[in-house]
Amino acid sequence: MALIVQKYGGSSVADAKQIKSVARRIAATKATGNQVVVIVSAMGDTTDELIRLAYQVAKEPSTRELDVLLSTGEIVSSTLLAMALKSLGYGAISLSGAQAGIQTDAAYSRARILKVESERVVGELKKGNIVIVAGFQGITEEMDITTLGRGGSDTTAVALAASLGAEVCQLYTDVDGVYTADPHLVPGARPLAEIGYEEMLELASYGARVLHPRAVELGELYKIPILVASSFSDSPGTLIHGGVSMEVRNRVTSIAYDLNVAKLTVVGVPDRPGIAAAIFESLASAGISVDTIVQNASIEGITDLTFTVAKSDLRRAMGVVKPIADSIGARQCVSDAKLGKISIIGTGMQNTPGYAARMFSALSEKGINIQLITTSEIRITCIISEAKVEEAVRVLHRAFELEIAE
Amino acid sequence: MALIVQKYGGSSVADAKQIKSVARRIAATKATGNQVVVIVSAMGDTTDELIRLAYQVAKEPSTRELDVLLSTGEIVSSTLLAMALKSLGYGAISLSGAQAGIQTDAAYSRARILKVESERVVGELKKGNIVIVAGFQGITEEMDITTLGRGGSDTTAVALAASLGAEVCQLYTDVDGVYTADPHLVPGARPLAEIGYEEMLELASYGARVLHPRAVELGELYKIPILVASSFSDSPGTLIHGGVSMEVRNRVTSIAYDLNVAKLTVVGVPDRPGIAAAIFESLASAGISVDTIVQNASIEGITDLTFTVAKSDLRRAMGVVKPIADSIGARQCVSDAKLGKISIIGTGMQNTPGYAARMFSALSEKGINIQLITTSEIRITCIISEAKVEEAVRVLHRAFELEIAE
Repeated sequence: MALIVQKYGGSSVADAKQIKSVARRIAATKATGNQVVVIVSAMGDTTDELIRLAYQVAKEPSTRELDVLLSTGEIVSSTLLAMALKSLGYGAISLSGAQAGIQTDAAYSRARILKVESERVVGELKKGNIVIVAGFQGITEEMDITTLGRGGSDTTAVALAASLGAEVCQLYTDVDGVYTADPHLVPGARPLAEIGYEEMLELASYGARVLHPRAVELGELYKIPILVASSFSDSPGTLIHGGVSMEVRNRVTSIAYDLNVAKLTVVGVPDRPGIAAAIFESLASAGISVDTIVQNASIEGITDLTFTVAKSDLRRAMGVVKPIADSIGARQCVSDAKLGKISIIGTGMQNTPGYAARMFSALSEKGINIQLITTSEIRITCIISEAKVEEAVRVLHRAFELEIAE
Repeated sequence: MALIVQKYGGSSVADAKQIKSVARRIAATKATGNQVVVIVSAMGDTTDELIRLAYQVAKEPSTRELDVLLSTGEIVSSTLLAMALKSLGYGAISLSGAQAGIQTDAAYSRARILKVESERVVGELKKGNIVIVAGFQGITEEMDITTLGRGGSDTTAVALAASLGAEVCQLYTDVDGVYTADPHLVPGARPLAEIGYEEMLELASYGARVLHPRAVELGELYKIPILVASSFSDSPGTLIHGGVSMEVRNRVTSIAYDLNVAKLTVVGVPDRPGIAAAIFESLASAGISVDTIVQNASIEGITDLTFTVAKSDLRRAMGVVKPIADSIGARQCVSDAKLGKISIIGTGMQNTPGYAARMFSALSEKGINIQLITTSEIRITCIISEAKVEEAVRVLHRAFELEIAE
């Protein structure tokens, strides 16, 4: 008898009909002799509607109250799912995040899970119940409700799977799995059967948007295999696990992109120690995340410092950097907000020459100019013009022969 | 500095605009130097909508799950009210029934409060916060959510007021208070400035429907004055308290009525011990509440047994009584479903002759026939034809001069 943790996203439980359909899927898993714990998101647009209500009563709603408010969305869907399962003749019980022992810090709206006290869940499983847990929420030591922020329900699922020692954590959503590239851009894109945690992390942070990185990191840390699949079909989905990365496959798995990129260059910076630190510490204090950083080789003690930020942060970043640039006697600050990022992802790339060259030549053949390049062990990223990103995804998908199944 | 408990019903917090208006009322109470605890119902039709959802996913929703589902309605309104108060510059915090220490038995959908552990509420008051508590809900020893059934939020309010030793429990709703008679029937009806707990209990169970009897009983038991008033006006409302009953005022306070009355008569019953017991025990086992019971004086060892039940229970009551009537050799069972009940209510009536006579003559002057009469210390009730009830309310309101303010 295996213990399986499943999570169903908001689009999978958007109305009563879908909730009943999800209940039948869960029942089928239980009927094959497994113990089942289910994490569920709020129905469809519930969370957005609750946020809208909050902003109708207060200009800046208290985050403490907002978390309690939003937590009701998942409680509603969890009780409905438990009712649906019981009416199919299965023992089932809904638990709030608090009842399921999801203990977090008190950082409202983006709480981190500190530990999972899963006695109640284990007790209900022993009674033969299917346990439905409200996702996205937890409770502090002071018994106050928190929410986990983006990717919250995925994180609840993987954390519970880790705490219970589940065989697998299955995340059901409205996509068929992790694709070789965004299927909206690349008609030939296909779902991967499997992918390593680290490749998935690169994909997730570079725009695949199937699964939040924190859930993947938790899965990697506790070695929980994560299946991403659709609740609307019977396609097998993508299994994210550790086995893949261990054998270095030397292969590009997928193409990721991100349109939310702006570039800022401080021109004519004196090449002295401490100057870069002054700039990036000030940006960090202002809560601005810096992504790629490139410093050109210094010519006669003068260099250019280039970095990228999210487009929405560009104005604020300029406001932070300009006074520093002036004070150190830099020539000027220039920015470009019309950029995008394109990446090829796969294990073992850094040990195998040729990938970068193949990427660059595929892009240059199409006249796509590369502005910046960064690499990691399993990723090569080029910053290019925003207008060229979609074409670049298709070009690289073809160049690395991702249409053809492994 | 007084401690005031306020409760706002669902119609008082039906949308964002009303929630902001209620927040201003609460703020005004706080601003005069009081500590304030607020109990809030679910917004408008929320509870009905949640029940509808439940019946869409399950034919007979689990009561355990239904209670958790319904409890979210009051949590939503409590958080929104706390947000609105904070944005007015007042310290405020929302607490669920569980967080407020409302401990109940495990009778889902109609739980009774066992005790209130109000440490958290007291602690938040000490910090200067206005405490907003989600009404209608509690938690069992096993940490499962329950709801309190009809009149739940009123009961939460009075129970918290008792536990905290509040000066007064103010229940705000969409009516101006307790009237001398139903204002829809009697144009001259007016709100009472005050009324005794017991008079209010008679009124509540006899159809005033302003306030559930359980809340009144709790108020009487713990000597908590209860103000019933409108959140939509500044009218003073009705104060329900003990002082009124103590001085016997010998006065009719109000007229109550009830249209949900059916009469069942077992004709020709042998007047032997045990026969009435057999009939009423069987009705109780079937969950049928019996109201008025009248047994005529026995003639030659044969009597008639008449009692009233709710109209909706008449068919089932007949099914229970008929076999017993046959087995004891009664002549027949007859019923009348077209009846109503009309009552005059006031303290000290039983000690003062003349009230009953005045009531009967006022009714007979209008040709209204009285079928049954019952009395208590503070009430005289006549069962009359359903068609005559509205007229009777107006006749008695005039006969006892209730149009004229005290």
